[in-house]
Amino acid sequence: MKGNGKPSLYTSVSPALLNLYDISNTIVVIIDVLRATSTIATALYNGAKCVIPVDSVARCIELGRQIEGITAGERDGQIAEGLEYGNSPFEYPKGFVEGKTLVLTTTNGTKLLHMALERGASEIVTGSFPNLSAVCDYLIAENRNVLLGCAAWKDKVNIEDQLFAGAVIHRIKEHFDINCDSSQMAETLYMEASSDLYGFMKNKKASHYTRLSNFGLEKDIQYCLTPDIANILPLYQNGMLIPMR
Amino acid sequence: MKGNGKPSLYTSVSPALLNLYDISNTIVVIIDVLRATSTIATALYNGAKCVIPVDSVARCIELGRQIEGITAGERDGQIAEGLEYGNSPFEYPKGFVEGKTLVLTTTNGTKLLHMALERGASEIVTGSFPNLSAVCDYLIAENRNVLLGCAAWKDKVNIEDQLFAGAVIHRIKEHFDINCDSSQMAETLYMEASSDLYGFMKNKKASHYTRLSNFGLEKDIQYCLTPDIANILPLYQNGMLIPMR
Repeated sequence: MKGNGKPSLYTSVSPALLNLYDISNTIVVIIDVLRATSTIATALYNGAKCVIPVDSVARCIELGRQIEGITAGERDGQIAEGLEYGNSPFEYPKGFVEGKTLVLTTTNGTKLLHMALERGASEIVTGSFPNLSAVCDYLIAENRNVLLGCAAWKDKVNIEDQLFAGAVIHRIKEHFDINCDSSQMAETLYMEASSDLYGFMKNKKASHYTRLSNFGLEKDIQYCLTPDIANILPLYQNGMLIPMR
Repeated sequence: MKGNGKPSLYTSVSPALLNLYDISNTIVVIIDVLRATSTIATALYNGAKCVIPVDSVARCIELGRQIEGITAGERDGQIAEGLEYGNSPFEYPKGFVEGKTLVLTTTNGTKLLHMALERGASEIVTGSFPNLSAVCDYLIAENRNVLLGCAAWKDKVNIEDQLFAGAVIHRIKEHFDINCDSSQMAETLYMEASSDLYGFMKNKKASHYTRLSNFGLEKDIQYCLTPDIANILPLYQNGMLIPMR
């Protein structure tokens, strides 16, 4: 904590910049709006027992077999070969996912989570619009240093993760000491886009909008930009993301 | 060039992300608004023969002695030990700098320039608000792929370099094929700030605003945010930045 007694808040816009931040006494929020962290929130909200993020397809298949979990994940935006399910929140309704364990591997989000773990984050949670309020309420209540970690796309900055970081900052900034240009920019971007997030993504030809709409996944994008539609807090503990009660 | 026949334009928000972009057939614009590239434009505009960017203080002193040049540069925002002059555009009026050679080393801008060189950029120019129009006119006339390279601050993204990238994009975007979230964000930020760049930097507590105003350098910030006040194009050739005629 700094002079004014408030904890600090920083935003890392790409996994390639995570090493610039000391996260040892910090809650790290993993942000991968399209679609990993939206899907994680949704699966847990719909009653999944836990989500186990793994960093490779091979590990996903191996672990899925061991624990009889659902193997899920994507590479380059599509279901990865050898896995049963993909990275769309619509694949995990209550009737399917309740009581089950999801073993998940994604291009960017799960990679960033493991980086944050290796770099000694005190706590790791995942955030996206579907659980915006749960994330904000938790960060305010904890009153500790925060790093908003954007998963980006293969290290390239993307709009949607910035928009979510901006939404969080806009809601909780009074509780934090923010000396971080990336955070200021994220909030400015969010304020500009907030009246129509989907329209903003479309108008700006956001790379991920283009990528997913080429697969016919506009519905996924709309869902992933909807606040509080799966309002639960996924907390990383003992290798698993579990819903905080 | 892509399908529509226009060259591409990308923005790299930090030197740590430069390696994500293929710059082999590309003009790279080095952007270090506060203050290296503003000072380079100013020195050349005021008649300096050339500016030689070097990557260390030791090399700056050595070369300055060899060629009887002015040794200049900063570390952490202040004149580096052993050098004669700093990184403020106000240090280089016509009466002082005309006909002379400046050997310059800075924390971020000169480092990025050398990275772009090593990675095989076809052309390297430097940009900042004082030479905004010169940069835009050149990029439109050349009709080649462009990378706007932000020098940032020790790899952390900063607002002012994004603002300049956004200003360039806003002026020249019709001439380029832009599929780059960072470019879209930079333009959005610029549009939000354009009516009062200085006020925006101040309101957002931009890290570099705080750093320089702590040294009493508000005048430098105001100058460096003023468009076309030293409207010349510094072009890198044979190890030197020379004014394009």
